[in-house]
Amino acid sequence: MNQMAGKQSVCFGRPVEMIGYAGVVGKKEGEGPLGKYMDLVVEDPLFGQKNWEESESQFVKTACEIALRKAKRKKEEVRMVFCGDLLGQMIASSFGLKQLDIPFYGIYGACSSSGPALSAAAMALGGGYADTALAACSSHFASAEKEFRFPLGYGNQRPWSATRTVTGAGAFVLGNKKAGKVVVRGFTTGKIKDYGIQDPFNMGACMAPAAADTICQSLEDFCKSACDFDRIVTGDLGAVGQKLLFSLLQDNHVDITKNHMDCGMQIYEEEQQDTHAGGSGCAASAVVLSGTILPKLASGEWKRGLFVPTGALLSQISSNQGRNIPSIAHAVWLEHAEGLQTGANQAERM
Amino acid sequence: MNQMAGKQSVCFGRPVEMIGYAGVVGKKEGEGPLGKYMDLVVEDPLFGQKNWEESESQFVKTACEIALRKAKRKKEEVRMVFCGDLLGQMIASSFGLKQLDIPFYGIYGACSSSGPALSAAAMALGGGYADTALAACSSHFASAEKEFRFPLGYGNQRPWSATRTVTGAGAFVLGNKKAGKVVVRGFTTGKIKDYGIQDPFNMGACMAPAAADTICQSLEDFCKSACDFDRIVTGDLGAVGQKLLFSLLQDNHVDITKNHMDCGMQIYEEEQQDTHAGGSGCAASAVVLSGTILPKLASGEWKRGLFVPTGALLSQISSNQGRNIPSIAHAVWLEHAEGLQTGANQAERM
Repeated sequence: MNQMAGKQSVCFGRPVEMIGYAGVVGKKEGEGPLGKYMDLVVEDPLFGQKNWEESESQFVKTACEIALRKAKRKKEEVRMVFCGDLLGQMIASSFGLKQLDIPFYGIYGACSSSGPALSAAAMALGGGYADTALAACSSHFASAEKEFRFPLGYGNQRPWSATRTVTGAGAFVLGNKKAGKVVVRGFTTGKIKDYGIQDPFNMGACMAPAAADTICQSLEDFCKSACDFDRIVTGDLGAVGQKLLFSLLQDNHVDITKNHMDCGMQIYEEEQQDTHAGGSGCAASAVVLSGTILPKLASGEWKRGLFVPTGALLSQISSNQGRNIPSIAHAVWLEHAEGLQTGANQAERM
Repeated sequence: MNQMAGKQSVCFGRPVEMIGYAGVVGKKEGEGPLGKYMDLVVEDPLFGQKNWEESESQFVKTACEIALRKAKRKKEEVRMVFCGDLLGQMIASSFGLKQLDIPFYGIYGACSSSGPALSAAAMALGGGYADTALAACSSHFASAEKEFRFPLGYGNQRPWSATRTVTGAGAFVLGNKKAGKVVVRGFTTGKIKDYGIQDPFNMGACMAPAAADTICQSLEDFCKSACDFDRIVTGDLGAVGQKLLFSLLQDNHVDITKNHMDCGMQIYEEEQQDTHAGGSGCAASAVVLSGTILPKLASGEWKRGLFVPTGALLSQISSNQGRNIPSIAHAVWLEHAEGLQTGANQAERM
């Protein structure tokens, strides 16, 4: 039986198998330290399309296709796809996925979208609503700059606290294979947190309070301490947000300084790539998840991870109105599957 | 046990109870034929706020609060809220709901959002992930005109095929009360359909193919014929879209001319209110659902309804790029609960 855990989490009665995943990134991300772990690096920022938005659609469609191929599933076998992006009315997702012809849920959590997409897809599996489900999300440097900031040609200067939107997409296939090496054990649905921050060039500071809140709640709900996880992985706090997160958690007597990792800080080599505080966007956490976190969990190098993508819930309109930037973080509890097959959780898994 | 039904639908093993619902609308909607069935009519289009977007947030927050009060549930008891709107980055939902402090999923289906919000919330209940969940959505005439069309002061003329965005919000509480009079029996997740239509002033024509596709698939998956439902209710096709829907369904040998109802055609008195093809927006279907459909199902006047809200998946950017307007429709199978308590489904319900 699935169980509500604590105040805002869920534990699956039978952990949900992750049977395929893919990360597709742009040229700059391909040149970064994780480039070699990506399934596809696309040199052309337009990905053969006519504009940035259609390019982003092509990224997410391609990531879904590769993930399905790796999972040995046809698109016709997928009962539901949960997908999101940063663009207004989520046109990257809808135009990208319409060609796959899969029953579609648009999921919005800003840069945290991989989290709610994964937890919703896992709910679909765990509830018996689907035998195969997809979770996906995308972002694109150029479409995001157009949506939220300045025209690229303007050459706007960015402060050191600013992050760079990752061009790419991640896709994750959940299914029943009885041979998956990584499972979703549970998740914590994030609450919207507003600490009154208004600087759109310091997203890390906006999102750190949401990450801290969700991490504390997850640990409490799952009756775990921080050291029970090989890594606690936030989405795109960047260097500035990480400091703030550590400090907020220490106020709650939680120390993750030894096992914290931030996807945004992994994807670029800051000194060489001039990316300031790190990478951001839905794709930042999604492609790091598919490129390094899931493979490490699959191989058993890591046994247990808490994936906590973070999102800032602003729009150009809310920003221009001088309003605060509320944020959200969703947690997904991932685990190497071998322990489940041989250990104490065997019964639970059946 | 929950069951996957046919190609893209779900039947709940134990139908999910709808224990509270509310519709809050603006002045023009309050003056319409359904005004008297609304829980609150707000005369001030700004709802006491500083701008249209914050006003829309106030509508959705208020609808949630009234629905919770009617369901006799506190906000602290709600495990998850699934909520969406039409604005870029869904700021109506995020700013409106942040004050309720409920674990939050942003759901996007354009004007169909009440559908995926309801089916996702029902999945949460049916899977044991929540004992109380909220589904909600909102739209606002002025924020939508600003987002998609022209500044209000410009006084743009609109063709007869155009619809008017409904100002309002609907909220629905799903829970275990063992006394709910309306239940969700199942749902069909919509696919994105693109028939090549590009006219943003004829949304009915854009969405009719998606509605036809989902209705046909629902009937097939649930092994029902159209006449098994007291009403098959589409979202906001309007007068133009309805004709097209009838014609598309007749091509598939499905006749819903006797039991079809379109929420967009119900909410205004066209001749007197100068609303052209009808109402649209997430709120159109949501407030008609809460104001008339659910009460009729609760009283037993209707035994069974198929609620099929429709959405056009465009943005200002995709429109300006001259791209097609794909669309989606989600179906939710609603039923009067008495039959379930006394009839053949008793066992299934436990």
